[in-house]
Amino acid sequence: MNIDMIRAASARLDGHIRVTPLLNSPFLDEIAGRRVWIKPECLQHTGSFKYRGALSAISALDPAVRARGIIAYSSGNHAQGIALAAQQAGAPAVIIMPKDAPRTKIDNTRALGAETVLYDRVSGEDRDAIGAKIVSERGLTLIKPFDNEEVIAGQGTAGLEIAAQAKAAGVTKADVIVCCGGGGFTSGIALALEAEAPDMRVYPAEPEHFDDVARSLVAGERLSNATTSGSLCDAIISPTPGVITFPILQRLVGPGLVVSDDEALHAMALAFSHLKVVAEPGGAVALAAALFRKEALHNNDVIVTISGGNVDADIFQMALTRFGGT
Amino acid sequence: MNIDMIRAASARLDGHIRVTPLLNSPFLDEIAGRRVWIKPECLQHTGSFKYRGALSAISALDPAVRARGIIAYSSGNHAQGIALAAQQAGAPAVIIMPKDAPRTKIDNTRALGAETVLYDRVSGEDRDAIGAKIVSERGLTLIKPFDNEEVIAGQGTAGLEIAAQAKAAGVTKADVIVCCGGGGFTSGIALALEAEAPDMRVYPAEPEHFDDVARSLVAGERLSNATTSGSLCDAIISPTPGVITFPILQRLVGPGLVVSDDEALHAMALAFSHLKVVAEPGGAVALAAALFRKEALHNNDVIVTISGGNVDADIFQMALTRFGGT
Repeated sequence: MNIDMIRAASARLDGHIRVTPLLNSPFLDEIAGRRVWIKPECLQHTGSFKYRGALSAISALDPAVRARGIIAYSSGNHAQGIALAAQQAGAPAVIIMPKDAPRTKIDNTRALGAETVLYDRVSGEDRDAIGAKIVSERGLTLIKPFDNEEVIAGQGTAGLEIAAQAKAAGVTKADVIVCCGGGGFTSGIALALEAEAPDMRVYPAEPEHFDDVARSLVAGERLSNATTSGSLCDAIISPTPGVITFPILQRLVGPGLVVSDDEALHAMALAFSHLKVVAEPGGAVALAAALFRKEALHNNDVIVTISGGNVDADIFQMALTRFGGT
Repeated sequence: MNIDMIRAASARLDGHIRVTPLLNSPFLDEIAGRRVWIKPECLQHTGSFKYRGALSAISALDPAVRARGIIAYSSGNHAQGIALAAQQAGAPAVIIMPKDAPRTKIDNTRALGAETVLYDRVSGEDRDAIGAKIVSERGLTLIKPFDNEEVIAGQGTAGLEIAAQAKAAGVTKADVIVCCGGGGFTSGIALALEAEAPDMRVYPAEPEHFDDVARSLVAGERLSNATTSGSLCDAIISPTPGVITFPILQRLVGPGLVVSDDEALHAMALAFSHLKVVAEPGGAVALAAALFRKEALHNNDVIVTISGGNVDADIFQMALTRFGGT
């Protein structure tokens, strides 16, 4: 896992991914007490950076392997990223999702051309057994959401863009805060910045009670969350840091920054008012950390990621009701 | 007023404006029955294309004139565009606004460094007399929101971007729908596309009951709206097409497309779900026309503008409540 893999992914993705802009607002600078730069991956295809990693992994496959198809386990942004990337690559995609996933997520994944296989997690149906059976029958390739080097390389292309765009804005030294689940996006960006912007420091941002990465970095070993349900920030909840991602995170990032659900909702409302972009709660934790964890930062410039792949209209309304116009 | 002025504006604005991306979504394509490309000027500084025109006009002034300062009449996007552009150019700015303008618009304009002068439109205070007195005392330069050639040239830079971005996406023939008030944005884009993408046809989009441009194009003369208040789409309501803009509109654009407030709200909700951008009602009429006036279009590709400078959180919530998740 190294910068050359990210550069190779960038070449494969060129012309397919959107180069998302680097936004800013004097109103956010005022709140943060420093300059805040925002990489809005909510504007990426399917609404999140997950499309980068999905397309990177699919495009790296041997064509004959790819043609047999892709399989993924996800009810969220990874599902849609894989579905669209597979469709564009002309590869069949099977997405295994819990039967009780939100209807719109299932529908959106199907609308992007993927076959969905639903399992009943409540009655304890064995997701992995279902997947293994399909894989053996059809010869599909499993693409994991973050513990996959080509996925990490794809997410890292956002880091190459950040380095180039920040440099064009005159910024080479900055704190960089990344919304962090299993660590694929965070480690990819950290590897890219290590090579392209070595004076930038990366911090993973997580929601409180689901801060496995922050705690693992302190402990020096992969710790787990007590539960993986019950957070508004569901888009970035994973049980534990990845096997591949954790050593990268240990070497390059931290400490972890932790924000409350309320702070994430507040950041969503501020992104609405001042950036005109739609963030989901899990995609707003980095902005929340930049605005509400000032004491943890060291530079005059802070760069944050935003994602918004699957924001629920009701949750967005809750954010506006509580923090709109602020 | 010609393409050379737009190219000159583009050179002056380079590095200051954001090159907004050209977005798309398979979900919107499905609804429209054709490919839909979106130019999200809500991501421009201050949330609307108005910043382009403001900076173009201010940067075109003689430095000694500019240093004396700028004055504008506006309670909306033009006010904020002028305020930010003047601040960046180191010029003082005075914005004349009605006393009953929404508090956030007044505050936002002040936060961008402008002096606001409030008048009481309810009691019939004479806005123009107030402005004329300030101009004569301080030697300020008035910049009108659309009837100003350098403003039109600035708005036209979005047309240059559309032509280049569409070409890069393989699109040279398309219907182009622009959210239209006084016609500055529409005529600027039309002039740019006449030169750079002559197989594209521009259509102004307006809210129903405020379709002065559509009716004026039919009548061949500048007609007025019965009233300028009472529309959700307040961002693009003006009494009548401009003196400078109307001949350009007559020569290059039309027919006008008219949508209901409900259709604009529906388009806002779809932009939320599928593009992750925040549109205001007046900035969503072009997308609404692309989705709900299919019969008026002729090409397999349609390109629309979106703006979102001053969307009210309550109105946005109304859009999500009525059309969210659709």
